[in-house]
Formats: sequence, C-alpha cells, structure tokens
Amino acid sequence: MYSLGLDFGTNSVRAVILDLENGVETAEAVSNYPSGVEGIILDEKNPHLARQNPLDYHTSMEDVIKCVLKKAKKDKKFSPEKIIGIGVDTTGSTPLPVDEKLVPLTFYKKFRNNKNAMAYLWKDHTGADEAEQITEVAKRDRPQYLSKIGGVYSSEWFFSKLLHLIRTDKDVFDAMASFVEICDYIPAILSGKRSPSEVVRSICAAGHKAMYNQEWGGLPDEDFLCKVDKRLKGIKAKLYNKAYPAGEVAGYLCADWAERTGLPEGIPVSVGAFDAHMGAVGAGVSAGVLVKVIGTSTCDMTVAPMEKEIKDIPGICGIVPHSIIPGYMGIEAGQSAVGDIFNWFVKKFAIPDIKDPHRYYASLAEKMKPGETGLIALDWHNGNRNILVDQKLTGLVVGFTLNTRPEEVYRALIEATGFGARIIIERIEEYGVEIKEIVATGGIPDKNPLLMQIYADITGRHLKVASSSQTCAVGAAIFGAVAAGKDKGGFENVEEAQKKICRFKKINYRPNRKNKEIYDKLYLIYKDLHNIFGTKETSKNLYYVMKKLLEIRGKV
Amino acid sequence: MYSLGLDFGTNSVRAVILDLENGVETAEAVSNYPSGVEGIILDEKNPHLARQNPLDYHTSMEDVIKCVLKKAKKDKKFSPEKIIGIGVDTTGSTPLPVDEKLVPLTFYKKFRNNKNAMAYLWKDHTGADEAEQITEVAKRDRPQYLSKIGGVYSSEWFFSKLLHLIRTDKDVFDAMASFVEICDYIPAILSGKRSPSEVVRSICAAGHKAMYNQEWGGLPDEDFLCKVDKRLKGIKAKLYNKAYPAGEVAGYLCADWAERTGLPEGIPVSVGAFDAHMGAVGAGVSAGVLVKVIGTSTCDMTVAPMEKEIKDIPGICGIVPHSIIPGYMGIEAGQSAVGDIFNWFVKKFAIPDIKDPHRYYASLAEKMKPGETGLIALDWHNGNRNILVDQKLTGLVVGFTLNTRPEEVYRALIEATGFGARIIIERIEEYGVEIKEIVATGGIPDKNPLLMQIYADITGRHLKVASSSQTCAVGAAIFGAVAAGKDKGGFENVEEAQKKICRFKKINYRPNRKNKEIYDKLYLIYKDLHNIFGTKETSKNLYYVMKKLLEIRGKV
Repeated sequence: MYSLGLDFGTNSVRAVILDLENGVETAEAVSNYPSGVEGIILDEKNPHLARQNPLDYHTSMEDVIKCVLKKAKKDKKFSPEKIIGIGVDTTGSTPLPVDEKLVPLTFYKKFRNNKNAMAYLWKDHTGADEAEQITEVAKRDRPQYLSKIGGVYSSEWFFSKLLHLIRTDKDVFDAMASFVEICDYIPAILSGKRSPSEVVRSICAAGHKAMYNQEWGGLPDEDFLCKVDKRLKGIKAKLYNKAYPAGEVAGYLCADWAERTGLPEGIPVSVGAFDAHMGAVGAGVSAGVLVKVIGTSTCDMTVAPMEKEIKDIPGICGIVPHSIIPGYMGIEAGQSAVGDIFNWFVKKFAIPDIKDPHRYYASLAEKMKPGETGLIALDWHNGNRNILVDQKLTGLVVGFTLNTRPEEVYRALIEATGFGARIIIERIEEYGVEIKEIVATGGIPDKNPLLMQIYADITGRHLKVASSSQTCAVGAAIFGAVAAGKDKGGFENVEEAQKKICRFKKINYRPNRKNKEIYDKLYLIYKDLHNIFGTKETSKNLYYVMKKLLEIRGKV
Repeated sequence: MYSLGLDFGTNSVRAVILDLENGVETAEAVSNYPSGVEGIILDEKNPHLARQNPLDYHTSMEDVIKCVLKKAKKDKKFSPEKIIGIGVDTTGSTPLPVDEKLVPLTFYKKFRNNKNAMAYLWKDHTGADEAEQITEVAKRDRPQYLSKIGGVYSSEWFFSKLLHLIRTDKDVFDAMASFVEICDYIPAILSGKRSPSEVVRSICAAGHKAMYNQEWGGLPDEDFLCKVDKRLKGIKAKLYNKAYPAGEVAGYLCADWAERTGLPEGIPVSVGAFDAHMGAVGAGVSAGVLVKVIGTSTCDMTVAPMEKEIKDIPGICGIVPHSIIPGYMGIEAGQSAVGDIFNWFVKKFAIPDIKDPHRYYASLAEKMKPGETGLIALDWHNGNRNILVDQKLTGLVVGFTLNTRPEEVYRALIEATGFGARIIIERIEEYGVEIKEIVATGGIPDKNPLLMQIYADITGRHLKVASSSQTCAVGAAIFGAVAAGKDKGGFENVEEAQKKICRFKKINYRPNRKNKEIYDKLYLIYKDLHNIFGTKETSKNLYYVMKKLLEIRGKV
C-alpha cells in the first residue's frame, strides 16, 4: 500500500508517494507556483507584503499529483489504486479569505487582482502594527494567550493578518465568509467541501498561530478581540470553535479531484498541519528526540507525553497539545538565524574569488581545537527567538587580537549557534522534557559536517541525520496513512508509522569527550554573555571573560 | 644660526638642520643601519630577540651628518660654522654594554658576533620573565617604583634587559663596566667621553624605564634589586646616581667627530631623550596641549607645571619630572593599537583586490553619521596600555546584524580608538591636568582625515596637525639650540624655542556639535563596556547596550 504526501512550500508544491511496507519514496515530484516572483506576489511600494495567488494551489496541486503518479507508475509494483490516504502540510500562518461556498475571493472577477483578497503568505509582515496591539492587549489582559507562544504575538500570525485585512480593505472583508489557513483549505478542497463550516481546522495552525487552546475554550474570547479592535466584534462566527490533530480524517477525496488526478475516489484526506511539524514527524521526532531543521534559521521540535502536564516553558515559542504527534504535547522552538549568519559572514567579509567560501573556511576551521580561536560570539544577528524572544538583540564577537583570522571568526559563529542550540535544549529539559538525541535535517547537515560535530560536542548529544530530503512530504504521507488506518493497510498511529518509515544516514555525530569538556567551559562564558546582554536579571560583571578565553586558548 | 637634530630610530638615523630664525628645516637626511634585517639583529630560534649592532650607530651617524651638511650647503645662507648646538633623540629603552673606556663590547674581537653584547633594542622581549619578577617584587615591597610607570614593569625596559643579560651571559657581564641607554651613549660619544662615569644620563630614559626618581633618591635601592636577583648586588656602582633633563649640556663636540663630519668643534651637545618625547616638543607640546603620535599605536604626551604637584595618575604609563620639557612634569600615555587594528581589519577581512583599502573603506565610512552603524567596539586587539594596563584584554565588537557591512565595522574600529583616546584624556583631567587641544602627528593624521574628524567629535577638542614630518629630529634640534643658549643664538628655554619653531598644517579639525552629542551617548556605552570587561569593579549588567545602539541608530 502507498500514501501520498503533499508539501505546500513557499515557492512550489512537492509530492511524495510513500511505500508503506518499507518506507521507500517510490516517486517524488515538484511543481512551481506560476504566479508572481517564484510564487510570491510582491508590492513595489510595500516591502512587507508577501501574498500568494490561491489559484496556484489548485493548478500546481493538480500538476504535481499527475506528475508523481506518472513517475510512480514506472515501478511495476505500484498502481494508483494502492494509494490509501493523503496527507497535506503547508507553510503557515498562510490564511486566505473565502466566501460562503469556500471559494477564494480572487476566483471572482471583482477581486482577481486585489492583493488583499489573496493568501497572506507566512512571511507577509504587513500586520506589524496589529501584532503589536494584540501583544499589548494580551500582555495586559490575557497573559495566558501568549504564554504558550513565546510571549509575543507575531506579525506573521493569523489574527495580525486578519485584523490588517479588516482595516485595509472593507470590500474584501464584507465579501469574506471566513479566513482559512491553507493547511485547512487544501484538505477541504480535496475532499469537496462546499462551505467554511465544513472545513476541519488544524490544531497545529490554530494552537501555534491563532491563540487556540482548549484550556480557555478554543479561540480567544470576543471581549479580548474587541479590546484589540471593535471591528473584530462577531468575527468568531466566521471562524471556528474546534481544531483537530493531523492523522484524523478531514474528509474523503471527492470525485472531481479523483477524476482530475487519477487518484482513487473516497480515500481519506488527513487533517493538515504546518510543514515544519510534519517534517519533524517525517524525520523521526519522538519523546526524547529533538528534530532540528537547520537552514538559514532553525526550527527545533520535540514532543512530550501528555501525562507529563508540561506547563509553559518560558521563552519557548510554541507548546501546543497534539500539534506534532496526536496524543503528545508538541514543543516548538527555534533560532532566528543560523545559516544566515554564516552566509552574511562569507558574503560581506570573505575573500570574494573563492568558489565555495563555506567549504573553504570550514576546511580551515576544522583544523582548530575548541577554544583555540580565543573568540566567543553571540548569535543574535537576527534577534533572538528563543529563549529571550527579543528582536532587539544583536550579534557580538569578543576576543579579537591582531592575529585573529577570518576562519576563526567563522568557527566562532558556528560555535555560537551551537551554544544557542544548547540554551534551548537546557531550557526545555529544565521544565522536565528530556532530550536524549538530536535528528538533524534541513539544508545544512549534509553540507557542513564541521557544524554537526561542533553541535554534538557542545550539546553532548548524539546527532543523527534524517535520510530523506523530503521529510515534510514524507511526514504528510505518514499522516495520510494514519488517517487511512491500520485496516486499510495504513497505521494505527504515528509512532507505529515512524518505526517503519523513518531512516537515518550512515554518517552520524557523537560527542568527543575532550571537546565537550572545553565547550562546557566556553558555554559558561556564552551563558554569561547571553544573560548579561540579553536579560535584565544579572548583576555580574564580565571582567573575567577575555582573560578566561585567553587562558582556555593557551591550554589547547 | 642653526641647530642639528639627530633622531636614532629603529631602522635608521635621521638628521635635520634647523634654521633657528624661522623654524625652517634647511636640510634633512637619513642613513639606514647597515646590519641585520633593516638594522635589527634577529635570532631564528628566539622570536623575542631584537638587537642592534652598536657600530651601526657610529657609521650611520657619520654618514647622515656628512649628508645633511652637504645638502644644507646648497642654501647659500648656510655654513657649518653657523651650527651652534646638537640634540639627540633615540629609541628606548635600548641599552648596550660598554667597557670601562666606554667602548661597546662588540668592538672587541671576542664579542663581535655575540648578540648578548649588542644593543638591546626597545622591542627586544627576551627579558619577559625578568620583567615579571621585577613587577612581582615591586608590587609587594616597593609599590612606589611602579606608581609612576603604569603599575607593571615591562620586558622592554632597562632592568629587565640588564637582568636577562646577567643571567644569560656571564662573560659579557664580567667584561661590562656599564649598561648605557643609546640616548646617553650618543651624546657621550659625540663629546669624546672616555668612561661610563662621564656619561650624562637622561632623566627621560631613567625615569620612564629604570624606575629612577629623586623622591626615592634616584635608581631603585640595592635591597630591592637583590630581592629580585642576588646577582644584582653591587650593580648600582656600574650605573649612575643622577640623571638630567634634555636641554642641559651633556658635553661639547670633540675634535675627532668635528673632523670626521665637518661640524664645528666644541659646540654643545644636549642631554638626550627618547624619540617620542623630543617629537612631542617638536610638535608643540605645552601645558594644556596633548601631542598624540598616531601610527600603528599611539603615544600621548603632555606636560604640567611642576607647581601643580601631580601625584600618580592611575593607569597612565609615565609621569616623570622634566622628562619632556625641563621644569614641567612630563606625562606619557598611549594606546597599544590604533593603526594596527585598521591594518589587521583590511588585511584579514577586506576585499583583496582593492588598491588602497583604507581609503576605500574610509570613503564609504565617512558618508555615515555617528551611531548609524549600530556597532560599538573595544579597541583592545593588542591589550590595553592605558588606563587599564592589561595585556590580557582583547577586542570586541557588538551590534552585528545580518546587514552589517565591512565599512561599518571599519568605522566602528576607528570610533573605538577615538573613545580610547577620550578615556585617556578624561583620566588625565580627573587628576587636575587640563587638556585644551590636541596636536596630532605620526603616520595617520595626513592619511586619514575621517579618523581626525571622528577624534575631534569624540573628544570635543580642536585637533591640529604638526606641519613637520620630522618632529623628532626637529625636537632634538630644539634641545640642541637650548643647550647652546640664548647668548650663542639659541634659546633661553624650550617654550621660547617652540614659539619660533613649531608650525601646524592649514588643515585642522574642530568638533561638530551634533556629532559630539551622539558620540557622548555612545561614549557612555563604550565606558560601560570598558569598565565591565576591563575592571573588576562594576556590578552593572549590560542589558541595555544592544537596545540603546539600535535606538541611537534609529534616530540618526
């Protein structure tokens, strides 16, 4: 039996057909969104605007499913009838306004070119003022609403975008019957839903981006919303009361989409979730295992058994029941810049005629021992998302001498992100959630073994690398198979599926004891700098820092 | 009338013939030392060793005097008989062992190639252990010995070198009748002295490098020296009891040197001093005026009337009566790296195919306003010589974002050295010595107007630039004319001479009020970083630093 995973990214949709007997990815395909600049609708006058044309989701989805089926058919074992379920992950928060028939407003002539009627891509920041206001009111009147999502409501999130829409385009708002995350919209479309009220909403999107929690009965209360803006009065009638975990059935594939694609009609479509979360499942997240998606920034995810009654973990950006694996508390954290810092460094400060500056500097940096650079850095070049949750923090490097070389700075920057990773792990463990090992995925693990070893040495943990390069689509396919259920050849639950499906590369990284010992010392310095520059709490002076670095350097 | 100034540098000796009526430099000449690598005898096995061949001083001096006279004769107004005095400045501490006839030991076959019998160049660091021991014993038993020289006895100084010689080469020590600074040796040779006891020692060298002070009766006491090393017992008999300020007569030109060079026999030769100090005089140092020699590092010098009774100024590296101008307290400070930091940055981090990277980055950096970089740096890449006197301090840059550009770092590094300059000025003023304006000299002022304006804005002071490029030799010539005295066509004193001689370039730098206001805010941050990283005293946290930098950047 097989399952289909659909991964709606920023620029394209990817599809994977997963062989449920052995976890093999029988076929994969990609279809780029046709509109805008690589799928993104921009605005010359407003650099914060980033929208998507909802029609792209339909055309690219049809295209990618046809394509992946065609490829899979080359395997004689495969036939489309053997597909038992569909899973969907998407970017988020990426909501779009729909009418009472669940039709995107841009499908109508009146709104076709109106950017305010399009999908508000996750990285659209037009709702910055709205986010600030929501944060302000919540901090004052409903601190609990922020306690699960890192203490600050972001301009990238659902209500910031909704409120911004209301304020900027009354026509669109009046025509709109609901505002639907695309991770909810896609499964609804595939299963032929004809009204917003039929849409099964994702607890992942709701909990992480819309302040949804069963503790306070779902979405934020009307009183609160009206305090933010009177125009939000009555908005809840247009939204939803309950959200569901991925793996539950959102609907069954409708005749229309079965016919258009060649998929079997009536197979279950799982409730959707965000790409990072399904990616974590595809990479092998479980209790005690942290999945770390390492790219330009990182997304760190783990789960904890619900019995543990995880309370808020200060500064951890998302703690949502069932958001990653049903039955578990989903915990999401992240570093706001990792690869971005190394890219910045080589772009601005590296010798320009080197073909692969990352490889060049890594090759020099890997000859050094921990502490040898005499440098220590704070990795806050793009603020700090965890655990300080403060955009107004910046990067620091200390320990320069007249002999400091670029490759030493490069190594210090990698180490800084490693220390940042350890800060997150320690904070999560402090609140009773153990992290025994790390599964790395994303763009960096394959490209930068030096970083991987440094992370193992700094965190003192075994680092594996997920073998699939399509962990999100694989995760989505897993949820498709869970939605199908064991009887149909799928799985009882996510854990069972992961055991069969998730694989790791041969290369893996174990901490070196000696390196770990030096990094333990350097980490104390990092933590002091972290606390003294990043919190108001410390009253310690840092007189010892430069001397200690020189002392450690002198010993290696 | 004319005066001859001789400036014995690290690689060469320079000569200037100064027209005392108008301050014009009638002629100048240079003669490179023939031995070693650009005049320096090195040792492959010991990177700390830097010696000079004493014969070089003789041959290069003869050469340069002949040459400068030949050039001066092109001026019909000039004739050698019109030279009324000679002044000499040299590097230091650069002592050499001599026998009882004042002959350098290397002039004898037995010691010709023995590096231990050569002159110990200022930057010879072979006496590092000895310096540490001297510091240790002095801190414990004679804190006053260190109180005028910055609190730490350096490996570059007289007694470190002497003790190192005693410990490493008994033959040389046994053959040695005295250890003579070359600023004392050269005037003695010119005036035909035949014994170490006839040498008139410089109070500048003695006070700054040999712990000499009339407060405790001259050189350190024997009891102290024996505590450092028993082998120093009786050493004082080989040294001296009294030292004299430059401008007094060290002797009169002997027949031998008059004949060899064509100078008039019997003209007075001034007591010598170090190059920086005579350079300060040549640049126009006076009460209220700080001369700042800005090059790879800086040397900052000013004077205060003796009546002021300047006590120790903590962290200021030299406070010696008469060391710069007779009758004034000489105050010397300095920054351990300035141009070296900018050179390090462009060498390691700048685009390599730019012809003049300093000019390139300065041209970009000068378009920015103070605070615009969002960066602040500590200029301790080579430790801190003032006012913290701590080699184990290192550089820091804070405020990096993913948009930080190299030219912003370049500007922040310049600003850091400007803040470092202000720290020194404020410390000196705190102890009652006013600094009204600054005269800059050295390699950087002509090359980097951006730095000059930044220094004016940060210090809030008018910066002039000394017009001579040979301020050391001009200063030496001034002392030659003071030694000659007013009756012979010279000067009554240094102040009178400076009024006639010292000139400034047309270009000068006045503080911009608006820039000053922003720099005042940034300086508070610099000072906090300075104190929190450089002293044990503060207990303040630095939480505000990154935010404040962003706030200031947001306003400019």
